[in-house]
Amino acid sequence: MFLNSPLLLTTKHQLTEMKTREELGEFAQIFNALMTLMRRFIFRVLNVGPVPNHISFIMDGNRRFAKKHNLEGRDAGHRAGFVSVTYLLQYCKEIGVPYVTLYAFGADNFRRGPEEVKCLMDLMLEKVELTIDQANSGTLNGVRVIFAGDLNSLNERFRVAAQKLMEITEKNRGLMVVVCVAYSTSQEIVHAVRESCVKKCDDGDGPVFLEVNDIEECMYTSIAVPDPDLVIRTGGIDRLSNFMAWQTSRSLLHTTAALWPELRLWDLVWAILKFQRMQDYFQKKKKFD
Amino acid sequence: MFLNSPLLLTTKHQLTEMKTREELGEFAQIFNALMTLMRRFIFRVLNVGPVPNHISFIMDGNRRFAKKHNLEGRDAGHRAGFVSVTYLLQYCKEIGVPYVTLYAFGADNFRRGPEEVKCLMDLMLEKVELTIDQANSGTLNGVRVIFAGDLNSLNERFRVAAQKLMEITEKNRGLMVVVCVAYSTSQEIVHAVRESCVKKCDDGDGPVFLEVNDIEECMYTSIAVPDPDLVIRTGGIDRLSNFMAWQTSRSLLHTTAALWPELRLWDLVWAILKFQRMQDYFQKKKKFD
Repeated sequence: MFLNSPLLLTTKHQLTEMKTREELGEFAQIFNALMTLMRRFIFRVLNVGPVPNHISFIMDGNRRFAKKHNLEGRDAGHRAGFVSVTYLLQYCKEIGVPYVTLYAFGADNFRRGPEEVKCLMDLMLEKVELTIDQANSGTLNGVRVIFAGDLNSLNERFRVAAQKLMEITEKNRGLMVVVCVAYSTSQEIVHAVRESCVKKCDDGDGPVFLEVNDIEECMYTSIAVPDPDLVIRTGGIDRLSNFMAWQTSRSLLHTTAALWPELRLWDLVWAILKFQRMQDYFQKKKKFD
Repeated sequence: MFLNSPLLLTTKHQLTEMKTREELGEFAQIFNALMTLMRRFIFRVLNVGPVPNHISFIMDGNRRFAKKHNLEGRDAGHRAGFVSVTYLLQYCKEIGVPYVTLYAFGADNFRRGPEEVKCLMDLMLEKVELTIDQANSGTLNGVRVIFAGDLNSLNERFRVAAQKLMEITEKNRGLMVVVCVAYSTSQEIVHAVRESCVKKCDDGDGPVFLEVNDIEECMYTSIAVPDPDLVIRTGGIDRLSNFMAWQTSRSLLHTTAALWPELRLWDLVWAILKFQRMQDYFQKKKKFD
């Protein structure tokens, strides 16, 4: 999570890791500064209206991006996707969104070939370890990271790293980032049912009658994170893909045709504007629905 | 469910119940016949591609429609909405869609004023009783009706009528229509958890460990109805509103700006074309996701 990286207005054609200021020429530096100013101005305008408290991203289209641009290497599309993650988190932080969820790896993704799964896991591990280094060196700007999903189904090295990252960022009070790994709604609900049964059995001896609230309280992120207000899906396919179906049943769903690595600042701004336009409707719904 | 009503190409401006053929002038009859022919031609073309096995409709916008057209009467918008239901079911039947789900009344809708709830319930009861009459007189064209939701929270007269309609259409093998009344995903999941616990406890004496399949098998419609392939929401707001979140997690979601009573044939055709365009993606997902 390179939150100190230079900030450009668009993430289009981000095929390589970001350049540092030193690498940029003088003109590029001025251009960059102008873009940063313009972006901050846009965010200031955006903040006149209500800003979503929690945005979830279904990051679809990495492989299609690699194919479209003839990128070599099995993980090329996913690497480009990680650059988008970096920018998006920075943008959300600047806008003032306190919670962001990233659907990084669905439980269904284990059905992909073992080589691709390994490649994705290695890449995620690399990024988690990098973020641990950033946290240790104090350059994470208060970001707190939580992993949600069936972590037991992942390899031990990743599990240990994820646990470590959660621990060392536990007391951070900046942007909270939930990373869904080996996640599916149906598994999460089964997990919550089991947890709430155990909890209720511990409370008394009588038969257990579960209510909606009992399950809700035992969801992976129920204590730390409110339900998403806005779900943004890239890649042009309007579907939830077994992602947080319980928590997003009242959220605004927004799909953009851009593939995940192509996602631009404008796509995010447009989704938030759509959320703001529909506030009247959502407020009424809260009252009378 | 007036499946024998005259068929027009568009349902726009349907402010009153449909006219019978006798009431229409000669010119209107010719126009109507032409429209029917054209519609059948469109459906024939549509059938060259894959047709969704199950379409769900989130019927939003009846009240906004009444307000927009200054309709008098508390139930005017909902009455207009019922006309749309009739046409839509006829269209689905002609296209060859075997399963249709209608989100008629959400559990959250009880939070509306008691007068509005009563008015909606009375209207639904009227339509259910009309459909029973049609079933008795043999004009229902093989339609089977199932109600899904917390029926115990409804008044007795409606419950009895709904039960009766389910019983007398039980053996029909035409279009299957699932009507979700007093429905919410979270309540359905809690219901399924309880049912599957009872089922598993009956099977043996040991402790109960629920799996995803156990819950899935105890959903309201799991035995009779496959998961929806396509969810169409009217009214321009992209959200699921606590509707079948478990079953639709892999469905294609399509939102149209048209209010429910304004929904035209073209909106349905467009949604099915979108579903067909994305078939390649869905087929690949089934293999590799």
